[in-house]
Amino acid sequence: VSPRGRRPAGEDTRGAIIEAARAEFAESGYDATSLRGIARRAGVDPALVHHYFEGKAGVFAEVMAVPFRIEELVKAILRGPEDEVGRNVVRTFLTVWDAPAGRTRFQLFVRGATTQRHIARMLREFLVREVFTKVARAAVPGGAELDPATTRRRASLAATQMIGLGMFRYVIELEPVASMPAEELVELIGPTIQRYLTEG
Amino acid sequence: VSPRGRRPAGEDTRGAIIEAARAEFAESGYDATSLRGIARRAGVDPALVHHYFEGKAGVFAEVMAVPFRIEELVKAILRGPEDEVGRNVVRTFLTVWDAPAGRTRFQLFVRGATTQRHIARMLREFLVREVFTKVARAAVPGGAELDPATTRRRASLAATQMIGLGMFRYVIELEPVASMPAEELVELIGPTIQRYLTEG
Repeated sequence: VSPRGRRPAGEDTRGAIIEAARAEFAESGYDATSLRGIARRAGVDPALVHHYFEGKAGVFAEVMAVPFRIEELVKAILRGPEDEVGRNVVRTFLTVWDAPAGRTRFQLFVRGATTQRHIARMLREFLVREVFTKVARAAVPGGAELDPATTRRRASLAATQMIGLGMFRYVIELEPVASMPAEELVELIGPTIQRYLTEG
Repeated sequence: VSPRGRRPAGEDTRGAIIEAARAEFAESGYDATSLRGIARRAGVDPALVHHYFEGKAGVFAEVMAVPFRIEELVKAILRGPEDEVGRNVVRTFLTVWDAPAGRTRFQLFVRGATTQRHIARMLREFLVREVFTKVARAAVPGGAELDPATTRRRASLAATQMIGLGMFRYVIELEPVASMPAEELVELIGPTIQRYLTEG
């Protein structure tokens, strides 16, 4: 044991960080949790948390078993011209959750969010900060600056459509939404997301 | 006890019908359950089930503690010109679930649908048959006939947006959607529903 009570690096350390992060996120939500707080609870140096997970979003994704890397997801959505962002949101969403085990994970998310308030809060703060506001900001034609309230309204409108799609495709399994080819849904729902992100 | 094993009318009979219906819906889903089957299980005359609940949708609403009468809800949505149907869907939805106890009931629905497959199935079949296809059919400009597949696709697309709105307003409580005035949401989301119901 080191004099400062810190653990050596290794697999146990990684696990200890994840457990500490789980507790911190549950207690304080996503926004108020810091890498420093996670490190303190895990008894490791903050640099080690950064080394393993590249930042708060990375730790959170690990804790929630999110099956993708957030930065890559956002990058995939913002690839291509501005007027394709809506379609890209739907396409990326379906690529992630249509993948093996995606359905089960989506069900777990929704179940967690509906039965435990702290999970609802963590997910909400995480989705808004790390995904939706980034996308909403990037979808502004010509890259103009948006006020935070508008960004947030657009982001949350898009979120309602996407979670509803997930509810019917993966949880309630309503046909034809449940088994429609992904590209059909991209064409049908993409324009809605585009409108929310640019006019909402 | 009557020779045919039937109960006399009264409050206990009403309760017995609801219990019988709960079991029938859980076993067979909404579509395959009949008033006759419910009556047989409750040991009453089918006419009595009709007398108390006016039909299958009425029994189901009672079983699920749905806080509205389906026919009146559909009537409210279809009031006014065709190009107002989308806004009316959002307005009626918010009137029902923004009402006292509405939030709690919506949370119970979603929790039931995510944790018990038979509840998901019942809700899905009920919503499609009694609400969404009726609305999708009525939204066709000029009242033209629609093929069932198109009706169903339009209905289920609208359903994804509406349940997603409910998820963020009543369960995950994402701002600004959670506390935005209803009429603002009507203006923002109504056009999406209108597009799904007429072009989806």
